[in-house]
Amino acid sequence: MMTGEEYRKSVNDGRETYFRGRRIHNVAEDPDLGRMADHVAAAYDGWYQPGVEARNPLMMPPSSPEEMRERMPLWSRLDVLTKVTVGSLSTLMTVAARTREQDNDTADRITAYVEDARLRDIRIPQCITDAKGDRSLRPALQSDPDAYVRVVDRAPDGVVIRGAKLHISGASFGHDLMVIPTKRMKPDEGQFSIACMVPVSSPGVQVVNVGFSPTADEREQPGSWRHLVFDGFVMFNDVFVPTPRVLSDDRPEFSATFAHSLGIWERLGGMVHQVDQAERLVGLALLVAEANGIQKISHIREKIDELAIFATILRAGLEAAVSNAHESPDGYYYPDELFTNAAKYYGAASYSLMVRHLHDIAGGSISTVPGVADFDNPDTGEGLRKYMSTSPTVSGEYRARLFLAIRDFTASDFGGWNQVGVLQGGGGLFAQRVVTRGKFDFDAAREMALDEAGLKEFL
Amino acid sequence: MMTGEEYRKSVNDGRETYFRGRRIHNVAEDPDLGRMADHVAAAYDGWYQPGVEARNPLMMPPSSPEEMRERMPLWSRLDVLTKVTVGSLSTLMTVAARTREQDNDTADRITAYVEDARLRDIRIPQCITDAKGDRSLRPALQSDPDAYVRVVDRAPDGVVIRGAKLHISGASFGHDLMVIPTKRMKPDEGQFSIACMVPVSSPGVQVVNVGFSPTADEREQPGSWRHLVFDGFVMFNDVFVPTPRVLSDDRPEFSATFAHSLGIWERLGGMVHQVDQAERLVGLALLVAEANGIQKISHIREKIDELAIFATILRAGLEAAVSNAHESPDGYYYPDELFTNAAKYYGAASYSLMVRHLHDIAGGSISTVPGVADFDNPDTGEGLRKYMSTSPTVSGEYRARLFLAIRDFTASDFGGWNQVGVLQGGGGLFAQRVVTRGKFDFDAAREMALDEAGLKEFL
Amino acid sequence: MMTGEEYRKSVNDGRETYFRGRRIHNVAEDPDLGRMADHVAAAYDGWYQPGVEARNPLMMPPSSPEEMRERMPLWSRLDVLTKVTVGSLSTLMTVAARTREQDNDTADRITAYVEDARLRDIRIPQCITDAKGDRSLRPALQSDPDAYVRVVDRAPDGVVIRGAKLHISGASFGHDLMVIPTKRMKPDEGQFSIACMVPVSSPGVQVVNVGFSPTADEREQPGSWRHLVFDGFVMFNDVFVPTPRVLSDDRPEFSATFAHSLGIWERLGGMVHQVDQAERLVGLALLVAEANGIQKISHIREKIDELAIFATILRAGLEAAVSNAHESPDGYYYPDELFTNAAKYYGAASYSLMVRHLHDIAGGSISTVPGVADFDNPDTGEGLRKYMSTSPTVSGEYRARLFLAIRDFTASDFGGWNQVGVLQGGGGLFAQRVVTRGKFDFDAAREMALDEAGLKEFL
Amino acid sequence: MMTGEEYRKSVNDGRETYFRGRRIHNVAEDPDLGRMADHVAAAYDGWYQPGVEARNPLMMPPSSPEEMRERMPLWSRLDVLTKVTVGSLSTLMTVAARTREQDNDTADRITAYVEDARLRDIRIPQCITDAKGDRSLRPALQSDPDAYVRVVDRAPDGVVIRGAKLHISGASFGHDLMVIPTKRMKPDEGQFSIACMVPVSSPGVQVVNVGFSPTADEREQPGSWRHLVFDGFVMFNDVFVPTPRVLSDDRPEFSATFAHSLGIWERLGGMVHQVDQAERLVGLALLVAEANGIQKISHIREKIDELAIFATILRAGLEAAVSNAHESPDGYYYPDELFTNAAKYYGAASYSLMVRHLHDIAGGSISTVPGVADFDNPDTGEGLRKYMSTSPTVSGEYRARLFLAIRDFTASDFGGWNQVGVLQGGGGLFAQRVVTRGKFDFDAAREMALDEAGLKEFL
Repeated sequence: MMTGEEYRKSVNDGRETYFRGRRIHNVAEDPDLGRMADHVAAAYDGWYQPGVEARNPLMMPPSSPEEMRERMPLWSRLDVLTKVTVGSLSTLMTVAARTREQDNDTADRITAYVEDARLRDIRIPQCITDAKGDRSLRPALQSDPDAYVRVVDRAPDGVVIRGAKLHISGASFGHDLMVIPTKRMKPDEGQFSIACMVPVSSPGVQVVNVGFSPTADEREQPGSWRHLVFDGFVMFNDVFVPTPRVLSDDRPEFSATFAHSLGIWERLGGMVHQVDQAERLVGLALLVAEANGIQKISHIREKIDELAIFATILRAGLEAAVSNAHESPDGYYYPDELFTNAAKYYGAASYSLMVRHLHDIAGGSISTVPGVADFDNPDTGEGLRKYMSTSPTVSGEYRARLFLAIRDFTASDFGGWNQVGVLQGGGGLFAQRVVTRGKFDFDAAREMALDEAGLKEFL
Repeated sequence: MMTGEEYRKSVNDGRETYFRGRRIHNVAEDPDLGRMADHVAAAYDGWYQPGVEARNPLMMPPSSPEEMRERMPLWSRLDVLTKVTVGSLSTLMTVAARTREQDNDTADRITAYVEDARLRDIRIPQCITDAKGDRSLRPALQSDPDAYVRVVDRAPDGVVIRGAKLHISGASFGHDLMVIPTKRMKPDEGQFSIACMVPVSSPGVQVVNVGFSPTADEREQPGSWRHLVFDGFVMFNDVFVPTPRVLSDDRPEFSATFAHSLGIWERLGGMVHQVDQAERLVGLALLVAEANGIQKISHIREKIDELAIFATILRAGLEAAVSNAHESPDGYYYPDELFTNAAKYYGAASYSLMVRHLHDIAGGSISTVPGVADFDNPDTGEGLRKYMSTSPTVSGEYRARLFLAIRDFTASDFGGWNQVGVLQGGGGLFAQRVVTRGKFDFDAAREMALDEAGLKEFL
Repeated sequence: MMTGEEYRKSVNDGRETYFRGRRIHNVAEDPDLGRMADHVAAAYDGWYQPGVEARNPLMMPPSSPEEMRERMPLWSRLDVLTKVTVGSLSTLMTVAARTREQDNDTADRITAYVEDARLRDIRIPQCITDAKGDRSLRPALQSDPDAYVRVVDRAPDGVVIRGAKLHISGASFGHDLMVIPTKRMKPDEGQFSIACMVPVSSPGVQVVNVGFSPTADEREQPGSWRHLVFDGFVMFNDVFVPTPRVLSDDRPEFSATFAHSLGIWERLGGMVHQVDQAERLVGLALLVAEANGIQKISHIREKIDELAIFATILRAGLEAAVSNAHESPDGYYYPDELFTNAAKYYGAASYSLMVRHLHDIAGGSISTVPGVADFDNPDTGEGLRKYMSTSPTVSGEYRARLFLAIRDFTASDFGGWNQVGVLQGGGGLFAQRVVTRGKFDFDAAREMALDEAGLKEFL
Repeated sequence: MMTGEEYRKSVNDGRETYFRGRRIHNVAEDPDLGRMADHVAAAYDGWYQPGVEARNPLMMPPSSPEEMRERMPLWSRLDVLTKVTVGSLSTLMTVAARTREQDNDTADRITAYVEDARLRDIRIPQCITDAKGDRSLRPALQSDPDAYVRVVDRAPDGVVIRGAKLHISGASFGHDLMVIPTKRMKPDEGQFSIACMVPVSSPGVQVVNVGFSPTADEREQPGSWRHLVFDGFVMFNDVFVPTPRVLSDDRPEFSATFAHSLGIWERLGGMVHQVDQAERLVGLALLVAEANGIQKISHIREKIDELAIFATILRAGLEAAVSNAHESPDGYYYPDELFTNAAKYYGAASYSLMVRHLHDIAGGSISTVPGVADFDNPDTGEGLRKYMSTSPTVSGEYRARLFLAIRDFTASDFGGWNQVGVLQGGGGLFAQRVVTRGKFDFDAAREMALDEAGLKEFL
């Protein structure tokens, strides 16, 4: 396993990565990007164990529903990249189990890769979403054939890929990119049916980073600092991938298995995150109602209750998914997809109203409260403290920082990034609907409705 | 145990019950009310076992979460009064367990009553909601002291009660009324702290029945026929209750225990019902979309998906409540209240939108489709069948009856009764919020928010 | 002009009309249908003026925005059929103005018909919606060619039509049916491009009536009695229509003009109705909150405020439509369609939530309050009055009847019919969207967004 | 009148103003704050006319509804401070008209001030919201008496005030601060009943600025640049105000007149802004749907339609308010408050859902699209352009900048500031409800409901 320091060195490998128009030469030491590397390194240090036998125990899917439930609070505390890696490796194990019957070799290759990745203790960003070009046309019919990542050349020792993958969390901070097809490919789309593990430092890989970079000190932007993430726009400019790292090539029949397996784990992680976030909203609403002295007003209380109900329903979705977890052929457990999807949809669809409740309770000071530098300035600090206080027990600085935190979490660059993430994470409302559609027992509902309507004779 | 026929005879006991201004002399044979007696009788026959040792197994709380889960589909098929009775007896067992430590006698009296009730195989409506008078005043301060049911006289062999209880499902069809306080009473409200079991036939008990009485044949009103219920407005005009049937009198400290214990079971039953209902809505929406030939249009599909998500979230609430069931001191299991409440709130708050989706998909024929008598009439039937058909595979009569069923379930006397019940059952949105408020871990949310806001120092 | 009595006689003309499987021989005297005839007759009496020159002034489109505004409260008080007739004649005048330039004859024929209809003072139901068959196929491609009303034969003196029209308000109570195409027809759909005025008593016309027929006395069902309407399912079984009553035949280019002209007036009438209804909801919510004594609780007040905002927005839509009324070529004024549509969409989409607010405020007694017969019965009336009262100033009978009214308007056969009507009237949410789409200035919005996004260079 | 350059000089007057902990010595030249001064200066140049008789015509309330309607597009193009000043002067004219009957002197003093302000062509920020302290206590009962701005000393030539005013748009950029009471004061709250005009440069006035300061170039943050505003937290540390600038002191009976008069104009300006914003959302949604190639998918189209309906309803509210404008005693016109309030409430309550629709249509690239610097960088620009393009007619750079604009307007520091402003502007949802409550004709609604419920006898 790696320590945080070893991790930092490991990513200083010449990778071609950019931020705001600048080429970044060492992501771990860059003043902007380096902050995310710090988070990843801290998780390395937190889970480090010496010895060649050592493995991070999170890096395998849970072997029982109970284990799944026990791990959830641990995930909550992981940085995004480590969390993503848990998902990547769980995904690969799921793919191996699902493909083994049809193709033992693929399953073995994947399993071997996972073993090696765990041994090397690497981090693995997930590259799924393609550029996509014209949404009304499938990959093989695009005017630019590179709209979906594809194999442009094959050689005995590997393949050459071209294309781009979008929305890649932590792309510049991992070691291998898990490149998988974004959707089910048709029989004539073998060139797009490529799943492979690509070192970030491979020649031809370019990552353009995008992220909310906090501009003030941590007291003013607690969320931006703690949850800071850089997403990558990853371009593969004819990148050579050696055969051992090609998990599947030219097998359209396997193309959907990767994204689908990933979906299972991504939604679980997403739900844990949503529940955390919902509970944070409840807490912020309660704190600011109390700081404003309005927590007992009936319509304020109603809004706080609705936030608590929101958080509880999300947790119910998670609980139901875990209680109804399914066993995979190789003895691992994955959460029930119908429940995670429905809850995720509900959470994403309701989030903006919940933020409105919080803003309604908090008031305009979310936007207009002065920053910590103004409180630190002795010429203005005293007055600000005086006037931001609402009673002898609510200090002006505390209340101001509460507003700053609400701003940071819900009405800022970070808040906006987060809001889009809640909605679009895991594929957007539409994707959740599609999975629900696939898993909901519509036949049972139809039959029950016919029975209740007295129309069974027409069945 | 009783057979259906024995049940019919048992309620022909001179009880004073009314419907639409008429005194009803035998509820089991009345052309309107008799239909509900038929449903109750059918459940008697369905669960009947001969022998003095026989007991209906549903009439005890579940002894494990698994048993709870197994029983849920059985409950779905019960008539309302039998379902209510399961709740009444479970409530009493829960009260006994909760009061045993403080007062062994009360607990014994309750347990003995439950034993006897199971032996006699009786049905027990629940009388909770009082007339209430002025909502801003507590019971002891009302201008009419009878606004809450109270003891107006005490004698060595029993008590005399006066007052009214509202919204009593099946009041005219049970044997004993479980009369319990509607809320926590103050120390000076001993006269209102009365819990007792009152035979419906007791002198002074008057029940005024209210119900949607189907006016057309069963094919036209499948829901009204199957789910028909009469609610009672029950007046206690100085009714004598003998001591053995007085569960608790003048003990304000126990007053809230009854309603609270009932709340646990009522919400579980309510959730099972809501899930069934939600799945029925999904089924009806799907069937009518198919019958209209619009099931593949994207925005129609979105509405059906949202209905399926709605149903899944309700089921998730139920699953989470059962998976997190709690054990009572006497070894029974009751569902987690936070999950049932939050889901019930969500279900009640969302129901009207879900019905709107169904109506949006179905179209105006919900209101304007002719009835079955018009289809039966040979002068009009042929034309109606021709014009209600949308394709060779969708018969006009089938489609018409589907509209009639949708009308009956969602846009009729029964539909209105049902809609109000979804919203107000178990105490209305406000009551769900109050329970959520009592059960949600606000301290954890507050602490988490302080941590995330970087404000732990202010804790 | 006709008196009410003359009207009653005029509809006793042998028309073939049905209700609940029965052939009705005289709609004016039938115990069920007669109630609607009473409403129509009352409006005749109310507007009656003697003399051959007399005309009902409402039966022409308004000649200024002011006149439009003045008439709105008059419309509110009209029965449905008279209101429909105002719309029918306004529609025809609009069609005449729109077609005059292309075809003077058609315009003249229509104008002559309108003159004659005003002189005869007849009532004219609107027949638009066809049976439609398979929604994914246009009229000419249906397996049953009669899915849309069509001309099956042409003779020198007239045409013969076949098909059905659905959702026809007051079909059995009018004199002539205004039969017009439901949509724009293609060039090969001349047989479906038929607009004609068909006397209800024409041989081959069959009307099957559907309606919520009040079952209790007027005090218990004030809405059902006052707003009672029978909708007709109208079948045209090879009905001969003489040439003077054929407004347009085999002219696909005019097919959409009729429905579109009607849309303008229908939406105006619909908006007036929605505003009335919204204000009624506000009033009922306020009254029941007061009767329950909860009108000052903050979250109750919030719901009443939201109802008032809902009503105000609907009125704003109406005000904006009238203030921005457009003049037709013949000097009449019609309301702006964008505003009426957007408001109608909002009103229809929000209605179910507003009813939920009302039900939330009112409580379960909507469903369980006893009826007036129980109050009339001396054995139960006194007790009911006592227990339904909430304070010395709120009588029990008043409060009970308020609940009965709320039930009748929002949770009954009539309430369901009304709810479907709010949603589906004027074509449903989808139809409002389509009109909005056609009228909203998307180009301006696009240009403004490009400007604001700093992307004008890409225009 | 002043030119832009004269304005710049005029605000370099030693005012004590701060930003992010720094004292700013000349707001017009500061790299951050100066940008807002640029906007203000541009409006000066735009409206400049030479000569002593010259006055900015916008700086008087409209003298007819038509003039009000004509000015609305002009307001849309004004910077915030100039817009605010229009409101300030209109407010003062309204106050003068309303107080004249009771107190001619006050009215004259106000009128004289307005004349002078127009002559000097100054800008006047509005200082209303106080620090407020404990929300459950009125001003006179606060533990810190300075929680509401108050007069701490009176002298023959003026008064001395102390306290703070929050959320003051453009406080550092105006000349005089219009300081007025935030609410109706009680008879014993004379010290808080102070309305006066305070030069920003008065000794003791401190302004702490808060604002979203764009960090990237204008192409990347078009909204942040164009709509940039700095809000001030304004502290009055025993500030002397000379008598001619004291509009009203110690007259609790006038205290509410100021805020109320301001409300009228603020809501009109707010509505114009909301309509603009809504149309911008429609445009952005349409553009991004087209750029993504999904504009014809039915559920996408539904969301765009709903945005258009949202924009239309807001415009209807504005149209209704202007069409129903009221004349003040001095011949000016102000918009109807009920309509502006209801529309503002609707707009504020619905805004977050509308943004969700936009985000749903746009997709995750809102957050993850690289910035313009990455497009400018030749090493990455070409690839980004290739992969952001969706078809030969949609250039990658155009589409990327569209995402950047959507991010900037709805998911950024500026977007968050704007979202809070939409919700809280004009006092928040609660304030809109309170005004609606005061203006809606509840008596008419109550009476109509009693009539419809058949309960007029109980009136």
